[in-house]
Amino acid sequence: MSAPFARISELPAHAGATVTVRGWVTHLRSSGKVAFVVMRDGTGLLQAVLVKNALSPEAWTRFGELTQEACVAVTGQVKVDARAPGGHELGVSDLAIIGPSPLDYPIQPKEHGVDYLLDHRTFWLRTPRQVAIARIRHEVEQGIHDFFYEREFVRVDTPILTAAIGERSGLFSTEYFEEGNAYLAQTGQLYGEAAAAALGKIYTFGPTFRAEKSKTRRHLTEFWMIEPEVAFNDSAANMVLQEEFVSYLVQRCVERRQAELKELERDISKLEKVVPPFPRLDYTDAVALVRSKGSDAKWGDDLGAEDEALIVADYDKPVFVFNYPKAAKAFYMKENPDDPRTVLCDDLLAPEGSGEIIGGSQREDDHDKLLHRIREEQLPEDAYGWYLALRKYGTFPHAGFGLGLERTVAWICGTPHIRECIAFPRMMHRLRP
Amino acid sequence: MSAPFARISELPAHAGATVTVRGWVTHLRSSGKVAFVVMRDGTGLLQAVLVKNALSPEAWTRFGELTQEACVAVTGQVKVDARAPGGHELGVSDLAIIGPSPLDYPIQPKEHGVDYLLDHRTFWLRTPRQVAIARIRHEVEQGIHDFFYEREFVRVDTPILTAAIGERSGLFSTEYFEEGNAYLAQTGQLYGEAAAAALGKIYTFGPTFRAEKSKTRRHLTEFWMIEPEVAFNDSAANMVLQEEFVSYLVQRCVERRQAELKELERDISKLEKVVPPFPRLDYTDAVALVRSKGSDAKWGDDLGAEDEALIVADYDKPVFVFNYPKAAKAFYMKENPDDPRTVLCDDLLAPEGSGEIIGGSQREDDHDKLLHRIREEQLPEDAYGWYLALRKYGTFPHAGFGLGLERTVAWICGTPHIRECIAFPRMMHRLRP
Repeated sequence: MSAPFARISELPAHAGATVTVRGWVTHLRSSGKVAFVVMRDGTGLLQAVLVKNALSPEAWTRFGELTQEACVAVTGQVKVDARAPGGHELGVSDLAIIGPSPLDYPIQPKEHGVDYLLDHRTFWLRTPRQVAIARIRHEVEQGIHDFFYEREFVRVDTPILTAAIGERSGLFSTEYFEEGNAYLAQTGQLYGEAAAAALGKIYTFGPTFRAEKSKTRRHLTEFWMIEPEVAFNDSAANMVLQEEFVSYLVQRCVERRQAELKELERDISKLEKVVPPFPRLDYTDAVALVRSKGSDAKWGDDLGAEDEALIVADYDKPVFVFNYPKAAKAFYMKENPDDPRTVLCDDLLAPEGSGEIIGGSQREDDHDKLLHRIREEQLPEDAYGWYLALRKYGTFPHAGFGLGLERTVAWICGTPHIRECIAFPRMMHRLRP
Repeated sequence: MSAPFARISELPAHAGATVTVRGWVTHLRSSGKVAFVVMRDGTGLLQAVLVKNALSPEAWTRFGELTQEACVAVTGQVKVDARAPGGHELGVSDLAIIGPSPLDYPIQPKEHGVDYLLDHRTFWLRTPRQVAIARIRHEVEQGIHDFFYEREFVRVDTPILTAAIGERSGLFSTEYFEEGNAYLAQTGQLYGEAAAAALGKIYTFGPTFRAEKSKTRRHLTEFWMIEPEVAFNDSAANMVLQEEFVSYLVQRCVERRQAELKELERDISKLEKVVPPFPRLDYTDAVALVRSKGSDAKWGDDLGAEDEALIVADYDKPVFVFNYPKAAKAFYMKENPDDPRTVLCDDLLAPEGSGEIIGGSQREDDHDKLLHRIREEQLPEDAYGWYLALRKYGTFPHAGFGLGLERTVAWICGTPHIRECIAFPRMMHRLRP
C-alpha cells in the first residue's frame, strides 16, 4: 500500500484522492456482495465500503475475519457523502489487519454495570460518549489556559509534596527521606498567594488530593483544580473574574464542541444562557430563601447539597452565595469589616443541580488576625511560618478562587457523576487500572 | 484617591492620565527635594518621581517611612520617558502605604547562599531573575498546550495515585484505604498509550515523582513531564514530532520573551539556531564518537552525562541518539526488527551541556514479546494486565516521548541548576516552604 496515510478528521482535504486510514472496527455489515466497515481512529468515524468484485479475493476474505476493535488499515478513495458519519466514505481497494481482536473483547454492545466499566476503563474510554467527554474536558482545559494567557496571568505550578499545610483532615502522606512525612497537597492556594506577590496575577493548574471516605457522585480522591490568585483584587473583583471565566469556558464549548455536546444529548440552549452577570445572593438571604422553601438550615451552618439545589432552582445561570459565617469557612478568608461574624468569600453554584464548582475568597491580609485564626483552628503554626511572613513584609489585599475541573466538565457535559469526567478516576475503592 | 487603578504593564494605554499603581518598593533614592521610588507589581518595574513642593507634607513624610518591599499605592500622572525602566515614569501626586515592611526583610541587596534563598523561596521568587525564569516557564507551558491543540492532540490527565506501574525503583508510596499502598506515578505513559487508542493523538501534562537520593543539578523529586503518545506513529515519525515540538517552544520564547531572556543574559543567537532538522546519531556511532574523544564507554552501556556532553559538543542544535541496546532501556520499548539487540528509541540531548531533555520510543506492540520483557524484568505481571490487554485486542503501532519541563526551561534560560526552574523545588533535603 503506497497511498498516503490520513486520519479521519483530515479526510475533507483528501476528497477524491486515495488514502490509507488506520483505526479500529466499531461496526460490520455485509449483504453478500457489498460490505461495510465502520471504523474509528480517535479523530472521527468513517464508513468504508467494500464491493466484492472490486477487491482481491484475499482482501475480501480478510473482511470476513474482522471483529469488533480489530485494528485495520483500509485503502481507498475518499468520497463525499453527506449521509455517512463524518460526511465521507471510503471506496475500499485494499484492506489489511494490523491487530486482530479476539471475540471476548470486554466491552460488548450491551449494558454493562459501572464497576465493570471502570474495571475496563481503558476500553470504555473508546466508546463515543467517553470520547466526547474527553474532548470537552480537553477544550475546557485549553480554554482555561487561553483565558489566563490572554489576561497576562502567569501560570505557577505549586508543589504536590508539602509539609502539612492547606486544609487538614483527609491527607495522603508519604515518607520523605529524612524530612519525616510529606503530605499530598489539597490545594495550591497558599503557594499561589506567595507567587501573586512576585508575579501579580497567577493561576495554578494541577492535581489535588483528598483522602476522604466520600462515596458521592461529586467526590474523587484525586481531582484537578485551577486556582487563580490576584494581587490587589478584592472580593467583588474576584467574583467578576469568576463569572467572566466560567462564561468563557462554557461558551467556548458551545462554539467549538457542538458535535460532542450533541453526542452527549446536552441541551445547548441551557449552556447558552451562561453569560455575565451571575446572580449574587448574600449568605443571610440564601438561608432565608432555603428556609422559605422548607429547609431547616440555620444561620451559621454551611449550606449542604440539598440547600444548594433549592437556591439554584430559581435561576438558569450559576449563582454566587457570598459572605458565609466565619466558622463555616477556612481560616485564611478575610474577616468582613462590615460584619465580623462573616468572611469575604463566595461559592459559585452551577445550575441544573450541578452544585458548587468554585469556592473563592479575599484572603486575610492582617498578620495578627491570621495568626489568631491559625491558633483558633489549632493548625501547626510552625508550618505556616512562611505564609504568615507574607503578611509581615509588605502585606497586600488579594483574592482568588479554586475551580474544580471535573465538576465543571460534568456540568457542561450534563453527566451526573464526575467519575466519567477524568480518564482514570480515583475513588475510595478504585485505584485501578 | 479616586484615580483608576492600573498595573504597570498597562501604563502605555494610560499615557498622560492620572492613575494609581499598587506594588512593592524595590529601590529608594532622594536628593532632598526630589525623591524616587522604584516599584514592582509583578507585571513590570516603574519609577515614581516625588517632588517635595508638589506633594502634601503627609505624603512626603510617608516617603521617608518607606522600606524595601513595603507595599504602596502611588497616584500620579503617567509620563513617557524612554530612559525609565519600562519606558514610563509616574509624576506622583499622592502616596499611601498599604503594608509596611520591617527592615529585617529576608532578601537583602547582597549575596545569599542558595540554601538560604531556598529557605526564603517565597521572597526569592520576587527578584528579577526568578521572575524572568517564571515567565519563561509560563511561556513554554502555554507553548506546549498551543502546539498540541493546533495539531488536534487531546490532552489527557493520567493518574498520580497508581497501583505500582511505570518505572519501578524510587517510588513514593501512601496508604490507600483498603486497597493497600498507592504509588505516586513516575510517568503517565502507560495510561497515555491506552488513551491514544481511544483518541488517536494525546498528550499528558502533569507532575511526576522520583524518590531518588540524587543530588545532581538535574534532578528533582517532583518534576513536570509532558508525554505525547500517537497511534500509528513509528520511531522516525516520533523524532520528527520531537524536533518540531522543541523548535517551536524555543522559537516561541525567542519571539515573545526577549525581555526575560535579556534579564537572564541569555545568548539568544544560540537559541535561534534551534530549528529542524536535528542531527540523528545511531547509538553505535555515538559510542564510537565518544570513544574517539577519550571516553571508555562500551557498546551496551547507557550513556552518562559526560558522554552526552562529548556528543553535543560537536553541534549547535539538540542531537538525537537513537536505538539504544535493549538492556539499557525500559521494558516497553519496541524491539528493533533490524537489530534485535536494540530497541526503537531515542534520547534528545540539548546543546550547551544541558543534557537529555527527552526520552522517546516506539512501544512494543507485540503481546508475547512484551510479556516476555515484563517477566525478564520481574515486574508485577498482575499490575500490568490492563497494559498487556492493549496488545491483545486490536494492537497497533504507536510511539511517544516524555519531555522534562524543568530541564527544558533550564536550557532555554541558560540556568545550570533546574531547582530555579520551578516555583517550589522538591529535592532530597528540601520539602519546605
